[in-house]
Order: sequence, then C-alpha cells, then structure tokens
Amino acid sequence: MEAGVVKALKRVLGEDRVLLDEEKLEPYQLATIPVDRKIPGALKPRTVAEVQEVVRIANAHRIPLYPISTGRNWGYGSANPVRDDSLILDLGDMNRIVEVNTELAYAVIEPGVSQQQLYEHLERHRTGLMMDPTGSGPACSVLGNTLERGYGITAYGDHFEALCGMEVVLADGSVLRTGFGHYDQATATHLFKYGVGPYLDGIFTQSNFGIVTKIGLWLMPVPESFEAGYFFCRSEADLGPVIDVTRGLLLNRVVKGSINLLHRNRSLTVLTQYPWHRMRGRTPLDEKTWQELGAEKGVGIWNGVVALYGTREEIRAAKRIIKRRLRPHVAKLQFVSNRLLRLLERFQRPLGLLLGMNLSELLKALKPSYELMKGKPGEVSLPTPYWRMKKPVPDANIDPARDNCGLYWFAPVIPMTRHHVRTFIQTVEPIFDRHGFEPCITLTTVTHRAFDCTLPILYNKEDPEETERASACYRDVLKACMKAGYIPYRFGIQSMEELAGREDRFWEVVETIKNALDPNGIIAPGRYCR
Amino acid sequence: MEAGVVKALKRVLGEDRVLLDEEKLEPYQLATIPVDRKIPGALKPRTVAEVQEVVRIANAHRIPLYPISTGRNWGYGSANPVRDDSLILDLGDMNRIVEVNTELAYAVIEPGVSQQQLYEHLERHRTGLMMDPTGSGPACSVLGNTLERGYGITAYGDHFEALCGMEVVLADGSVLRTGFGHYDQATATHLFKYGVGPYLDGIFTQSNFGIVTKIGLWLMPVPESFEAGYFFCRSEADLGPVIDVTRGLLLNRVVKGSINLLHRNRSLTVLTQYPWHRMRGRTPLDEKTWQELGAEKGVGIWNGVVALYGTREEIRAAKRIIKRRLRPHVAKLQFVSNRLLRLLERFQRPLGLLLGMNLSELLKALKPSYELMKGKPGEVSLPTPYWRMKKPVPDANIDPARDNCGLYWFAPVIPMTRHHVRTFIQTVEPIFDRHGFEPCITLTTVTHRAFDCTLPILYNKEDPEETERASACYRDVLKACMKAGYIPYRFGIQSMEELAGREDRFWEVVETIKNALDPNGIIAPGRYCR
Repeated sequence: MEAGVVKALKRVLGEDRVLLDEEKLEPYQLATIPVDRKIPGALKPRTVAEVQEVVRIANAHRIPLYPISTGRNWGYGSANPVRDDSLILDLGDMNRIVEVNTELAYAVIEPGVSQQQLYEHLERHRTGLMMDPTGSGPACSVLGNTLERGYGITAYGDHFEALCGMEVVLADGSVLRTGFGHYDQATATHLFKYGVGPYLDGIFTQSNFGIVTKIGLWLMPVPESFEAGYFFCRSEADLGPVIDVTRGLLLNRVVKGSINLLHRNRSLTVLTQYPWHRMRGRTPLDEKTWQELGAEKGVGIWNGVVALYGTREEIRAAKRIIKRRLRPHVAKLQFVSNRLLRLLERFQRPLGLLLGMNLSELLKALKPSYELMKGKPGEVSLPTPYWRMKKPVPDANIDPARDNCGLYWFAPVIPMTRHHVRTFIQTVEPIFDRHGFEPCITLTTVTHRAFDCTLPILYNKEDPEETERASACYRDVLKACMKAGYIPYRFGIQSMEELAGREDRFWEVVETIKNALDPNGIIAPGRYCR
Repeated sequence: MEAGVVKALKRVLGEDRVLLDEEKLEPYQLATIPVDRKIPGALKPRTVAEVQEVVRIANAHRIPLYPISTGRNWGYGSANPVRDDSLILDLGDMNRIVEVNTELAYAVIEPGVSQQQLYEHLERHRTGLMMDPTGSGPACSVLGNTLERGYGITAYGDHFEALCGMEVVLADGSVLRTGFGHYDQATATHLFKYGVGPYLDGIFTQSNFGIVTKIGLWLMPVPESFEAGYFFCRSEADLGPVIDVTRGLLLNRVVKGSINLLHRNRSLTVLTQYPWHRMRGRTPLDEKTWQELGAEKGVGIWNGVVALYGTREEIRAAKRIIKRRLRPHVAKLQFVSNRLLRLLERFQRPLGLLLGMNLSELLKALKPSYELMKGKPGEVSLPTPYWRMKKPVPDANIDPARDNCGLYWFAPVIPMTRHHVRTFIQTVEPIFDRHGFEPCITLTTVTHRAFDCTLPILYNKEDPEETERASACYRDVLKACMKAGYIPYRFGIQSMEELAGREDRFWEVVETIKNALDPNGIIAPGRYCR
C-alpha cells in the first residue's frame, strides 16, 4: 500500500486502528477451509463517519475493502476475503446496541454486536425479549449472520425475515437508510420492512453492494411457556412419514418454530469424536461402528427436535396434535419442559439408576439444543469440526479455525418431500464415501416448504492429503447437487466464482447493479458477484 | 406514434391486439381519482415472448410502456399511467395458472389471473388450498396486488411475503428469473424465496425496473377449522387497551392472521350510503347522525374482526386467551363458526324475533368479511366508494371507476401503540373536517408491530367542486402525515412525484438502479421513481 494512503487512513482511524503487522493480521487468515489469502492490512473503524471516510479514501485510490463483522463465518471462509489484496474492514469494534424497544419488540444493532452480547443485554435489562441464536457460538455477529441470511430454530429463525430497516454505507461514502428510515420523521422504520417504493434490503444481503452499519431486528417476546419435543426413528424407512408429518405441522402452523432432523452420524459428531482407537486409525467410519456408537450414545438413525412456544394452553393443544401425528412413525417422543429438565438435573444419579439410563449423557446431549431454542447462544455446532481431530474439544472458548479443525459447510435447499430428501441423500452419500468422509446430515425446516441441509465435510486440516480430499469432496458434492437442483442457500469464499453459469442473466443483472452502485469495485470484490 | 412502430407492434401482436381507437382506450382512462392521462394506445400480448418483442421495439424507439395486470388499482389511479403518452401494456390476457402444487402448497400464476379465477381453480380442483383475497373485488389481479405489496387478512395476508420466485422481462427484452429460478434444474424455486446471492425480488415491487410476467405464490392449506371473532367497543376510550391486547396477541402469535379494527364511520360506509335525505343535502355528516346511524345498524364506535385458523383444539385454546384478554375492554365479543353461520341463515326470521335483533342486517354486515377471511374474494370494500353517490350500489359487477365514484386511498403505516394511533387520528381528523369529508378509519395489522390504516377520501366525482376539495384534502393529509412520520405504504399515481424529498439518498439510489437496468427509461416512467 502506498505510504500516502496509509497516512490518510491513520489520520482518520488513529495509528493503532490501521493494522499492517503480519502478526496482527494472522487472526484474519485463520479458517477451517484451506485458503491462504494475501491480506495487506486491516482497518478497525469505530463509527459510521469513520467508515464513510475510509470508503472515500479506498474509492479514490481503488483499494478493495473486505468488510467483516466479527469474522466468524465458520466453514465458509471465516474472516478471509474472496480475493487477494483486499484490506479487511473489521467492524467488530462497532458493537453498540443502539436501541431495544420492549413494547414493540425489536433492537437496533451494529455489526460488532455478538450473540452473547445481545443475549446478556436482553437478560440483564429484563426486556422480556429473546433472540434467535445460531449454534455457531456466542462470539458470532448477529448482523453478520443476518446479512448472510443465516437461520436459527426459534419462531424467529429466518434472520433476514426479522430484519427491519438498514443503514448502509455505499461505495461513494454516502449513507443509505432503507425502509421508511430515509424519512427523518418516520415512526415505523423498525416496524414495517418494505417502506414505500422498491424494497431494497434484499440486495444488501449475500452481496457486495454496500457496507451495512446498522440493522433493526425483530425480537420474540419470551413466551409464557416453552417445551421442546425430542423424538427418534429406529429405521431409515421412518424418515419418509416423518417428513410428511413435518411438512403438515409447519404448513398448518401447528409449530411456530423449526423442526430439526439430525441423522445419527450428525448427532454423534456433536456428542463425541472419531473413535480412532476402535477404528485402529482407519477412515472413514464403517456402518457397524456407527451402529455401535449410536447404541452407546442412545441416538436413533434419525433424531428430531421441535420447539413449542406459547401459552400453556396453546402448547397443550400443539402437543396433542404432534403426538397424534408423529407417534405412529417414531420410536420415542418426549417433551421436555423447564420443570422436567430441572428435575432431571437435580436427581440425575438416583433417577438414572431407577430408569437404567445414563442421564448425564442424555442431559449433555439435550441441554445445548434446549438452551438454544430458548434463545441462549451456545456452542452446539462448534464441537462438530473437532470430529476428525486427534485432540479433545476444548472445554471453553472453542475455536475450530484456531485449532486447525477442517470444516467445509455445504448447505443446499431441498423440497420438503420424501422423494427429494431421498434423492438428495442418494446423491451425496456415494460422493462422501468415495472421498473417505462421513456424511453427517441435518435437515432444518428453513421455510414451511423446504429443508436446508447443513452437511459438513469434517477433516483434519493438519493432514495435507486429507485436506486435498476434502476439497475434492466439496467440489464434487457441489457439482452433483447443482446438477440435481439442490442449490446451496449460501456459499463459501472458495466457490463464489462458480456461482454463475454460462449466460446466466441473473448474475449479469447482479453485476449491472454492482457496477452502478460501486463502479470502482472497491467493496468485497468477488463476493457473490463476478 | 410513428406508422413504422405501429406496424412492427402489429406484426408481433396481431392487428386486433394493438388498440389505438379512442373508444377502445376509454376503459384505461377510468379512475376514481381525478386524472386525465393522454394514452396513445394499448397493447395486449399473450405470451412472454410477445412481451419481450414489444419491449425490444419500445426500447429501440424510446416509447414508454406502462404495464398493468388487470388495471384495477382502485383509488390509486386504476389503469392510468403516471405520465402522459405512455403506451398501456395490458397483461390481462396472460392469465394462465401455470401450476398448482397441492403437496407443497403454492401456485405459479401470470399477471392476468384474477382473484376469482384463482379462487375457482382452487375450489374446482379440490386442492385443499386457499388464497388470501383482498376486498377489492373478484376481478383484481393477484400478481398486480402482490407487486404493489397489498395485503389481506388471512394468515397469508402479507402478499409479498408469500411471493416466491419471479419471472421478469427487463427493458432490454431479456428474461430474469429470481431466487433459484435461474438455475435450470432448481427444485426449490417456489419453496425458498432468497435463492443464493443478492435477493432481488423486492426491487421489482412498487417499482418500474422490469415487467413481472410470472410469480410463485404460497397458498395456505385449508385449515381443519375456522372461526371469526367479532367485537365492538362502546367508547373511544376502549381503543387504547384494545390496541395493547391486539399487539400482544400478534407478538405472541396467538392470532395467525390479522386483526382489523374498523371505526364506526368506516363500518357504516360498507353497510349504507350517505343519508342525503336525513341530512337535507348537507355535508359532512355530523356526529349526531353518525351516532344514530351507528345505533340503527348496530355497530360500535370501534368494531374488530379477528380470524382464527387451525385445528379445533388450537382454536379453542386461542379463543380462551382472546376472551380473557379482550373481554374487559369490549362491549361484545362473539365467535362465529361455519355451523353458527348456517344456523343463523337458516333460522333468520324466528331467531331474529326471539333475540329481538335484525339478523338479516347482521348477516349482511358479517358475511362478506367472513367469506373473505375464508379465502373467497368478494366485494367488501367496493361499496365504500359509493358512499357519497346519489345512486345505489349495483347488486353485481360493482365498478366504482365506471360509476364515477370518487375515491382516494390513503394508507399510512402506524406503530401499534395507543400513543401513535391517537396522534395519527388527531392529525387526520381536523383535516378531513376542514375539507368537509368524513374520516373513515380502518386499522389493519400489517406486521405484528404496525397497523396500516386504509383511509378513503370519499367524494362525488360528478361534482367538480367536491372533487377539487377531495384533492386538496388528500394533499393536506399526505403532507401532515409525512411530517408526523406516518408514511403511506403505497402511493397513488397522482402523488408519486412527491415521494422524494430534497437530497434523499434512498431515491437517488433507486434512480441509479433504474438507470442501470432501463437506461432509456421505457418502463413505467415516473412510477415510484423520479
């Protein structure tokens, strides 16, 4: 970078907020996928005005900026830019919770606000509101996940749907307010998403058209009552009917949150690590050992979770319907309430003896997802990347990228029918097998009509050969699923160039809008855009 | 228009699909607002390929096209273009229901598909699905209303939210498919809205960026059970608590549809016409006469409707909560089921005598909204424009524009709090009064956090002086509400030029995108864009 530019940036941000030392840039280069980006520096603005100034300088000198919120985009590239030589624009220190409106149930937040921070704020101030956390960890940015259109499993699980009113710094340094927000007197900026005229918010998600510095986010009032239903199937053949029931429960709005269906393999990656000893170092895990592990940990071939929010009466009504429809197809269906959970915890030992069950294992399996459904951010999904590692999962402060865990997330959308789920599984399983990896499928209802499957490729990033195989597996599974019509809802930085097919008018239009809003291409070049 | 252009258009569409005779253009000029647009012609394509050809010709010759679906944008300009000299592109004959998927509960429709047509199709084929109709009449386009982000009152009331996957003809004649639709093999095009990369759909609503020729639309499965709750307040002071209860019922998702609060005046415009005789020709209606009319027709000062969808158990649970919360604040709360309605209809006379009520009046008031909530398009809102007319409302085929009814719709969004609703009413009432019109307020919950108020200005369009006053009233009420922060969710063609304030970056960005996608400005110039 030219000395003049560095000087100008330091004048705006201060000496210590322009990072150029290799050592200080190292954290930005960590990732669970094999990338090695050239990162010339990182900038840490504290205010929108500083972001505007930085963008103006970058625009004048044609320097690409790569905005990150907290940079924890695990399995999709973490903080790494899509292209080399991008300056990281680290918005992590812009972490104000600008407003929480308890009457109308929303918050206004900046990019650096983490899940944990928002959670604690809502608790500490007894707001009576809850957030929808993802399982990706307490330190993840709420805004960042929302802009990637991430999802959780409460009734506010579709994060983009809960977004209401944006503040965006554009490539020329100007500030855009969406919805009604650009009218100074507007009273409904965070209450009505669309505003008047073209509804723009969508184009600033999964895109590089602007730098989002604030969002309004709808929050769910803590319900009078909460229960989680856990169920499992003993046979693969039960999955079909369970899918039909799931679709019905959502389309008929019996369930207000999501339903999660975890394959045995996926459940086990959360509960344990690869049994290196038992497998005598061999990979991949064979079906016999999967079965043994499943029996030991008490998980079914498919394991379901459903969250119920409402008054006691509503939950009672919903439970009756769910039981009636689901029981014929599952081996066990158990609803867990706060009271039951407290009871189990308190009398873990005697109850365990009485029931002949390992209640401590059961609670370990149950509690993180239970807390998540109640709006408490946790690390539910973070142990998964340690599956193939030969070191244990840390007790706290889990950081897969730091610990060299290998993880590609692959997250295609699948119509909520037996036929499509079967075809999808038949598409991906042989590919994982061929490359020597275990398919660990979760199906989450992202709409009332479709599942998103989060399918990790878990590998040891310390092993170059295995890493090479993991990348090949990712490429093959992506190619096969694109061909079969199961398109991922989100891409990692390693495959964004593959988004646009030949003569795809959609991506041409995206490029046209990009060129109109950012003619010098300074914001996150390559990110969801050619 | 040049002879060469006419010839080219006729070559594409056929002789009789290029309308140039004044007589044939007259229907496009009808409106309930005082506009008199110069319309040089109308084109009636039948296929997407024809639309593409027409757009290419228009683009080459810089001829503005104004796309309409069925042109029934009552109170906002109907079929009239924003600017003079636009060729109407009438998509009404593109009226195929391309697909109805009963398993995954969606339809794919063209612009000309009317509410009635979709309704009948869903019934005739016993799809088990229902649509969300608006009260604007059976002949209105479903797609047109969705693109204007209109709303209904079932659980699928937010029409844009139910839109999933678009086909758009752009100004250069190319076809854009949004969501996953641009991937040929995609299986979830109509199941998952966002696709991957920037989510574009929003920019083609309330805009002039493209011509939408197909949309996917989510439909609601007919619930096991349905009941409508009707309630009314005797005193204005009860509105505050009712608003608080309403917000709670929605935020806690007890109610899956909308709640509608109609002011007495508004209810009466649906049930009757201006009492010219009793008022001896004077306007506006005085409070004393309003009270008398209200008492005669049995409506309260505020009248509420809430729709409940679900299983019998769920509805029972919801009713119990609604009763508990609402009863302290309302004079009467009555739930109506199909069975009760059939009973009332059958024993109208004897029951009426027994209860000392005019059941036939009650049923007349009740049934249209009841049917609407059950997904049957009706003409609930169509008699309203006849309020000030001295001729009766036609028994069938109501057409306010044809009958010279005067109607401006004004539809601001208001935070769902007592304070804001009160401030809003205090803002608009004196203005209506000053101009000699009756404020007839409906508050509909368009989100869980905001009402949209549909506030008609009802006047006799055959009276030039009254028409002048209505326009002045509209301008004043718009100005006052913009200043107070109650921005309309939708604008009429007469006031689109007033959308952009000075130095409003939002509208500059809209213009930038417009110029990028339609550099010659041939699609609907002036529509939600400078």
